[in-house]
Amino acid sequence: MLQPLITLLTDFGTRDTYVGQVKGVIASIAPHARVIDLTHDVPAQDVLVGAILLDGAVSAFPPGAIHLAVVDPGVGGRRRPVAVQTERFTLVGPDNGLFTAVLERHAPQRVAELSNPAYHRQPVSDTFHGRDIFAPAAAHLALGATLDQLGQILQPHVLTRLDLPQPIQHENALELHVLYADHWGNLITDLTAQRFAFWGVPREQVVVQAGDCRIVGIRRTFCDVAAGEPVAYFGSSGRLEIAIRNGSFAQSHSCGRGDRILLTRSSL
Amino acid sequence: MLQPLITLLTDFGTRDTYVGQVKGVIASIAPHARVIDLTHDVPAQDVLVGAILLDGAVSAFPPGAIHLAVVDPGVGGRRRPVAVQTERFTLVGPDNGLFTAVLERHAPQRVAELSNPAYHRQPVSDTFHGRDIFAPAAAHLALGATLDQLGQILQPHVLTRLDLPQPIQHENALELHVLYADHWGNLITDLTAQRFAFWGVPREQVVVQAGDCRIVGIRRTFCDVAAGEPVAYFGSSGRLEIAIRNGSFAQSHSCGRGDRILLTRSSL
Amino acid sequence: MLQPLITLLTDFGTRDTYVGQVKGVIASIAPHARVIDLTHDVPAQDVLVGAILLDGAVSAFPPGAIHLAVVDPGVGGRRRPVAVQTERFTLVGPDNGLFTAVLERHAPQRVAELSNPAYHRQPVSDTFHGRDIFAPAAAHLALGATLDQLGQILQPHVLTRLDLPQPIQHENALELHVLYADHWGNLITDLTAQRFAFWGVPREQVVVQAGDCRIVGIRRTFCDVAAGEPVAYFGSSGRLEIAIRNGSFAQSHSCGRGDRILLTRSSL
Repeated sequence: MLQPLITLLTDFGTRDTYVGQVKGVIASIAPHARVIDLTHDVPAQDVLVGAILLDGAVSAFPPGAIHLAVVDPGVGGRRRPVAVQTERFTLVGPDNGLFTAVLERHAPQRVAELSNPAYHRQPVSDTFHGRDIFAPAAAHLALGATLDQLGQILQPHVLTRLDLPQPIQHENALELHVLYADHWGNLITDLTAQRFAFWGVPREQVVVQAGDCRIVGIRRTFCDVAAGEPVAYFGSSGRLEIAIRNGSFAQSHSCGRGDRILLTRSSL
Repeated sequence: MLQPLITLLTDFGTRDTYVGQVKGVIASIAPHARVIDLTHDVPAQDVLVGAILLDGAVSAFPPGAIHLAVVDPGVGGRRRPVAVQTERFTLVGPDNGLFTAVLERHAPQRVAELSNPAYHRQPVSDTFHGRDIFAPAAAHLALGATLDQLGQILQPHVLTRLDLPQPIQHENALELHVLYADHWGNLITDLTAQRFAFWGVPREQVVVQAGDCRIVGIRRTFCDVAAGEPVAYFGSSGRLEIAIRNGSFAQSHSCGRGDRILLTRSSL
Repeated sequence: MLQPLITLLTDFGTRDTYVGQVKGVIASIAPHARVIDLTHDVPAQDVLVGAILLDGAVSAFPPGAIHLAVVDPGVGGRRRPVAVQTERFTLVGPDNGLFTAVLERHAPQRVAELSNPAYHRQPVSDTFHGRDIFAPAAAHLALGATLDQLGQILQPHVLTRLDLPQPIQHENALELHVLYADHWGNLITDLTAQRFAFWGVPREQVVVQAGDCRIVGIRRTFCDVAAGEPVAYFGSSGRLEIAIRNGSFAQSHSCGRGDRILLTRSSL
């Protein structure tokens, strides 16, 4: 059997030992499972950004991966802990919308509520289900447990879905939203290449208005403009990004999550 | 043989390659050992916080784990490099009190000074024993080395102990101390559930005074209060924590390490 | 066969999933390869600091390691993606000077441009060659691919070299440069122990002028001065470092990358 692979995406940060404890529990149950960090720096309790980051990462992993994701402001409350199987991978985490973006492209095939205490770490704390419920579930899945062993099977339609930001079509413009700014200060928007193609405006005729910055044309990459110049391009996740070559657009223009960006067609 | 497991807890940060070098040395000696990061963001040279973070993490790991911990302001000076065996795990690091909290709950059974140069990386630098002394020791332990191979056996009582913060009993109050604020801005205090039970005040009658904030009652979890409200509860490490649901108590109330918190009994 | 080892050094940061995606691609191709992070916090697009950090880390790793390094402001432009074999290890990354410091001490034996699309992740994005070109190359090398399979063989002399900072010899002084400040605020300079020996001034007669701070003598380690005192010593990477014992020199004296430090001989 191939070594099973578990990925982790959380808002736990890295200055405490929370992530280490999750890995310790996994290693206790499934010592042969491999664990890869996606990120632990999702903004605290920001389920939406977590959903988008997770969605951008899963396609880089081999089939059969187990994606453990915990951004869980409702821990200890009434939201369900779940495992969700798709054709390609299994998701484990809170049912609070964190899987919305991923499930739009990978239909849920089978869903379980993680209700079987035999698969929990005992005693279960009220504030750290990442360690006590989700990590054991992921580890047992890595050992070959089935969803119905982990708990009650649910209908996929009961899963919580978030309203993801979407571009808004105006009469003469397309209104985008900044999903987040990445490490370099590049703005990641909600416009995918497919949605852009549907708009039907040629790349070189697009005018991007982002904050006080006006950019004409969508380029292939940063290197199509001079250092210090702003540039719009479809990034590695398939979304339109706004950047400054060798600089930080987010910082230079004080832009970030939720800000609007307007695309219009050049009059030329 | 099971794959040996080494955990790392340091104040090395992650922007240099210090942690990577430690892992490289381990991989050179014990390529089959698995390495899990607890954290590398212990506040620089803060042995006390390191001791508490380490103590909070070890119970998540399987028996036989080797915990390599380096918060070592005295590197190159006279403090001893040691390995300490307990019934459940082995600790490796500087003898400067970093193991105090762990050893209160897991008695040291056998202690060695890491004095055998055959188990050092040569040449030993004067400033990076994490790489040159501690990493080789952990890796050789993972390979099956015994403590007396690593160096001179010491009596456990010679180990350096820190004075850990403890709640102070006043006539009508219990005075706690903030050990540290975690990633979300939750305050972790020195009050354990056992120590609280000994005080004998019912949870719902406790009045918590933390900075300018007054909280009545100890709850089960954040979700027992509304978003934005302060809340006190026993956290995943078994200690009383003070938080704001969906917010940062540390930031909102400018509280942090060393601050005092007063518990009194409600007059109702 | 031993488990192959791949290290990662990037400026990707850890708050996005870029590093996770690189690891996912490696795991998809070479599931048995072990991956160790050197750092992902190279200052954004700072090839020079990346080069120096990489150089300081490689000697901690066993022979045969594959070092994947990506600090790549020119991604998608004309710089070549390359793999460089030395006697001890193989380097994979952009040919933009990132390997300059390493190659000064480890001569390149064989160089390939990563031009074979069969060893790329398809489709290749224009902005994320770390995931789409470099990670697959490193993974295929871990599987045993040879350089000529990865693409066209190049002459080593065509590799891009950076001008690395070097100490400047003045009539009565040696002028050093701060390469970077590390996590603790220690300044790492461009003076190696060999270069210092060539200068010929005894350690105890050296006067270090760093910002507004004057230090007499080069010590063995921090512990040779009192807490809070400044100190100069040759650090774990073999370079002269300027620090404050139990403090941050970079912060206390507002010093950092590029700043000059003057060494003179004491008149005593």
